[in-house]
Amino acid sequence: MATRNTPLDRFYSVIPAGGIGSRLWPLSRADAPKFLHDLTGSGQTLLRDTWDRLVPVSGEQRIMVVTGRAHRAAVEAQLPALADHNVVLESEPRDSTAAIGLAAAILERREPGVIIGSFAADHVITNQALFLQAVTQAVAVADAGYIALVGIQPTEPAIGFGYIHCGGAVEIDGAPSAMAVDSFKEKPDLATAQSYLSTGGYLWNASMFISRADRLLEEIGRSEPELLAGLLELAAAWDDPATRGPAVDRIWPGLKKIAIDYSVAEPAAAAGRLAVVPGYFDWDDIGDFASLAKLNSGGRKSDLAILGENARVLSDSSSGIVVSQSKRVISLIGVKDIVVVDTPDALLVTTSEHAQRVKAVVDALKLSGSSDVL
Amino acid sequence: MATRNTPLDRFYSVIPAGGIGSRLWPLSRADAPKFLHDLTGSGQTLLRDTWDRLVPVSGEQRIMVVTGRAHRAAVEAQLPALADHNVVLESEPRDSTAAIGLAAAILERREPGVIIGSFAADHVITNQALFLQAVTQAVAVADAGYIALVGIQPTEPAIGFGYIHCGGAVEIDGAPSAMAVDSFKEKPDLATAQSYLSTGGYLWNASMFISRADRLLEEIGRSEPELLAGLLELAAAWDDPATRGPAVDRIWPGLKKIAIDYSVAEPAAAAGRLAVVPGYFDWDDIGDFASLAKLNSGGRKSDLAILGENARVLSDSSSGIVVSQSKRVISLIGVKDIVVVDTPDALLVTTSEHAQRVKAVVDALKLSGSSDVL
Repeated sequence: MATRNTPLDRFYSVIPAGGIGSRLWPLSRADAPKFLHDLTGSGQTLLRDTWDRLVPVSGEQRIMVVTGRAHRAAVEAQLPALADHNVVLESEPRDSTAAIGLAAAILERREPGVIIGSFAADHVITNQALFLQAVTQAVAVADAGYIALVGIQPTEPAIGFGYIHCGGAVEIDGAPSAMAVDSFKEKPDLATAQSYLSTGGYLWNASMFISRADRLLEEIGRSEPELLAGLLELAAAWDDPATRGPAVDRIWPGLKKIAIDYSVAEPAAAAGRLAVVPGYFDWDDIGDFASLAKLNSGGRKSDLAILGENARVLSDSSSGIVVSQSKRVISLIGVKDIVVVDTPDALLVTTSEHAQRVKAVVDALKLSGSSDVL
Repeated sequence: MATRNTPLDRFYSVIPAGGIGSRLWPLSRADAPKFLHDLTGSGQTLLRDTWDRLVPVSGEQRIMVVTGRAHRAAVEAQLPALADHNVVLESEPRDSTAAIGLAAAILERREPGVIIGSFAADHVITNQALFLQAVTQAVAVADAGYIALVGIQPTEPAIGFGYIHCGGAVEIDGAPSAMAVDSFKEKPDLATAQSYLSTGGYLWNASMFISRADRLLEEIGRSEPELLAGLLELAAAWDDPATRGPAVDRIWPGLKKIAIDYSVAEPAAAAGRLAVVPGYFDWDDIGDFASLAKLNSGGRKSDLAILGENARVLSDSSSGIVVSQSKRVISLIGVKDIVVVDTPDALLVTTSEHAQRVKAVVDALKLSGSSDVL
């Protein structure tokens, strides 16, 4: 008989499935967020890819999804094996500390000593074996009391990601690669990114947090005691159908909106309680269409990547990416590095260079009363 | 009482409404050719604009339209005042000599000595008064036995038009501006076009032919006697419902396809029987989307021209032209000199620079079995 004798046996995966991905509009929408799309040509959504990646780590019964009420049906359709008690519905978005903290508080009540790992629903990872290696080490780090991150070994001077500056090695059984985290760096300019790569000791921040649930809550409590109190109160009411609804209505809307990077990661790093395990797998957060183009063109800049079932695209001397969701014939002539996103009610035409500006357009559409296409 | 005492009283306008305008795909289609679109924002089709321009010249009862059977209903809907006997339907396209020649043959039988003027259904002309002046002179030239052209005074070194090289003045009463035609020049390169402008004596060829019908037929007979024989036979059968159908079925499909430029204009010029009257009105044949963009942006290159009723276009630092036929939201970010043509079943994205290559795409779509969108 199997006995629970490794930290991984106490591991629970948490998938916060929240963000819309505005920089991928008009593909990503309020009612069709990024995680519900197949952006890799895998034939399934990013959420399902994430689930499939985590099942070997924690098992189907130990994966919790935190998502908006509006996405419940879509999430459950994507993940038929997701247990009812592992669906945490947000009545409205309150940012990542609330989302992951609530999961931690619920799970810690159910199973004291649980170790949780939070993994975004809309990232792309290839090489499952290397992912598993890194997570296994991170779980050992978490078991030793640290807040653990998995940071990605950079392969190029990317300017679209945050960086983790590593400190010295930390000695933890089962985690030979673990290092202290010295500091976090916001998205750098190209020269800075190049210096990170040549210096070494920098990893991409992939927002993968692994921690004992009680330790995570402790960290939240240090920086945001009111937020922690709300989360604990919610968790206490959660598993009784009679108390959950009223508690959510009373507490959730008042929770402070703060990213876990600020409530937990930065203070813990400053206090020496944060460690990182490098991951050597390919990773991307597909932050915009430039990144999506790159991901789908095998890195060949002269190619035209085409996404979309039964896409009918005719390209003459064109490169970039076409996302086809409308079944229309799309003809491109002599347009280089182009981004064309063709959906039934909205069309985007830009270039890779301007891909980050898509979010501003979404804001402009909101202001101009075009919310029907957002 | 009015009496017929000027050549203009014997004038008949002929509108060959045939070409699809493949360089304007996917706006122009087999079932929605260029002449059935409003490309100027006038609120009506180019065909209707053409009709309205010709009514003051020849009157509603003296305008004949030669078009394909498939377009009969659309043409009649556009031109409710068009008389039934002035609709000449082609069972299939046989190029401009057959189309204009048949009109000439029919009209000459009905009204010997008639003068006809042929004007494309899909050109843009502003300044009706200057148009009327030029046509009036050309009719006088035609009455004197010449094949007359109206050539357009160039305003820039356009490379998208053919040019007429003018010879010396010809002395004709009522046509003080008439000149002999020395030769025709195909679409030139920019340097050549610039030299035409600086030299002077060159006009744009707008394919406006004005001639006595009998003289036009005589010219066709000189270069293409078999074609003339077919046209005369057709015309003899035309006005009897019992004979028209069988004659068309027997003769039309076998007529030689040849542009009137080759069958009439070039030989007549070489023989000194062609004269030209310069037109000082604004004219464009809207040959491609670059030309359409220019026409609709008031010549300001930095602007984005938008065509389409209720277009919902959001532009951020973009220029060029958007043709919106699908009611979708169209967002452009940082794309310069772009051409976006958005129709319910086909989308084109290119730049002004490549606008001439649209025709090649149409050919490719034909070959690839995508005729549903042509």
